[in-house]
Amino acid sequence: MPHEITIHSPATLSNLGCGFDVLGLALSAPYDIITLRRAAKPGLVIRHFDEYNLPIDPAQNVAGVALQALLSAVNDPALGFELDITKGIRPGSGIGSSAASAAGAVVAANEWLGRPFSKLELVELAMHGEALASGARHADNLAPAIFGGFTLVRALLPTLDIVALPAPPLWVAVVHPQIEIRTKDARAVLPATVPLGLAVRQWANVGGLVAGLLIADHALIGRSLEDYIVEPARAALLPGLAEARARALAAGALGGGISGSGPSLFMLCADEATARAAAAAMGGVYRELEIAFLLHVGPVAGQGARVAARK
Amino acid sequence: MPHEITIHSPATLSNLGCGFDVLGLALSAPYDIITLRRAAKPGLVIRHFDEYNLPIDPAQNVAGVALQALLSAVNDPALGFELDITKGIRPGSGIGSSAASAAGAVVAANEWLGRPFSKLELVELAMHGEALASGARHADNLAPAIFGGFTLVRALLPTLDIVALPAPPLWVAVVHPQIEIRTKDARAVLPATVPLGLAVRQWANVGGLVAGLLIADHALIGRSLEDYIVEPARAALLPGLAEARARALAAGALGGGISGSGPSLFMLCADEATARAAAAAMGGVYRELEIAFLLHVGPVAGQGARVAARK
Repeated sequence: MPHEITIHSPATLSNLGCGFDVLGLALSAPYDIITLRRAAKPGLVIRHFDEYNLPIDPAQNVAGVALQALLSAVNDPALGFELDITKGIRPGSGIGSSAASAAGAVVAANEWLGRPFSKLELVELAMHGEALASGARHADNLAPAIFGGFTLVRALLPTLDIVALPAPPLWVAVVHPQIEIRTKDARAVLPATVPLGLAVRQWANVGGLVAGLLIADHALIGRSLEDYIVEPARAALLPGLAEARARALAAGALGGGISGSGPSLFMLCADEATARAAAAAMGGVYRELEIAFLLHVGPVAGQGARVAARK
Repeated sequence: MPHEITIHSPATLSNLGCGFDVLGLALSAPYDIITLRRAAKPGLVIRHFDEYNLPIDPAQNVAGVALQALLSAVNDPALGFELDITKGIRPGSGIGSSAASAAGAVVAANEWLGRPFSKLELVELAMHGEALASGARHADNLAPAIFGGFTLVRALLPTLDIVALPAPPLWVAVVHPQIEIRTKDARAVLPATVPLGLAVRQWANVGGLVAGLLIADHALIGRSLEDYIVEPARAALLPGLAEARARALAAGALGGGISGSGPSLFMLCADEATARAAAAAMGGVYRELEIAFLLHVGPVAGQGARVAARK
């Protein structure tokens, strides 16, 4: 058994335009840094080394809840872990902050234990953490956080079904305006029902986006990103959205939209130069609006949460 | 210019379970046989060599309307064609009978003219014929009838967007119970709106089916075929559906559902032997129900409407 294991667990984008609740991708940065070591006593001890004042009670911490689910599955009453978490991903940013912590914790423990769990099982376990964070059992951020790359959560029930989607190299530009959109509010504006014709257009785009990724057709990816259902409902929550998108497209981005339930916006791009230009263009909109913002630019990460150090 | 051109224009399946209005595939048989030759006078002369008493007035015949749209695009007032049609596909079978005639007519004329039109443009032109047949402008049967293989109609507007989906070799079993389901009735039972959660499950399956085809994952294809929205609404129109599906699955079929608006049922299968077993199993259900039926078994056709003879 190693003395301690450190994991880098990446930010992720969910929805990806048309694919509400089912599509996602892993970013190369930012990421949470999670170090796990054997504790002297059974149970969990969590420490945070960041500025966000997240709860350290394991039952109230997403990483703690995920790790507790893993411990229950292992069923070794003597086992306990210490978990040091340094969040590189701001909570509430809409780029999978809670998923990164939950994924990192279970990936760390799985490595410590000699990998008894599959990636799919790790997502299942980490979903307990996501349920604490959002009140709903979902995997659209966890799937890319653990599998890396682009992922499709085809089903949650009767059994979790995740499809890794091979894709060409792509870059991502993310702008995170420093405004708060609570996930519950973002859910509350969603329509309970959608017109069948609009749903058809949406699933045509999901098919187009998946095909575009798998046959490496940049133009098809761009055309397919459009979201007819969720983004129109949430657009009012996010100032600058239309203008930021327009300028990013003018800068050469393939397409994009709100990441998760916001407030971050993402744009997929064919290369680094375009992603940097798209990020700068989106940043310009928020500068003009006098809304503070963060920018993230990087390639889609082929890998999910990964071992960064082992002692 | 050739003296005459004969086209075999294939039956097609639309919807493919989860992909209502957007997914389709081309069968290798049955097919319509369409022979086109230059007419002595401008305009169209249509003759039918089959038992279905379809209208031969070009303005009331789907092939005629499609061909007239092509003639209008060519804009040669002197040009006229004779069209001989032998339908191999029964009208009202739900396997793209009208699409085959419309596609065959425009493909024949395109060949005669030296291929001035792209496949996408041919679908656009043939959609005029489909609009006559169903009252709606749609391309989910025409796309595979002209492109062959599996197709996704990603968008009809603002411009038609069709994606050809490379797929592993697959076989299809089709049972056509001899009952009448009018397209208009099949449309009337559709819900005007669908719960968002169900729409999400549906588009997850569309993504899964497209991914399954492109990465040649038979099990994923099978899991993804399930239709949560359209088939439940139409099931009552089609006696024997649940039992036929159950027996086909038991015979090894990957999955399937109602073809188009019915009454045909299809099952995708990994190989010929399984497709024959699935067809026999479905036929058994209709024999027990004392409903006459036709069976079609064949591979998915890589090609759409094609030149069979040229004089």
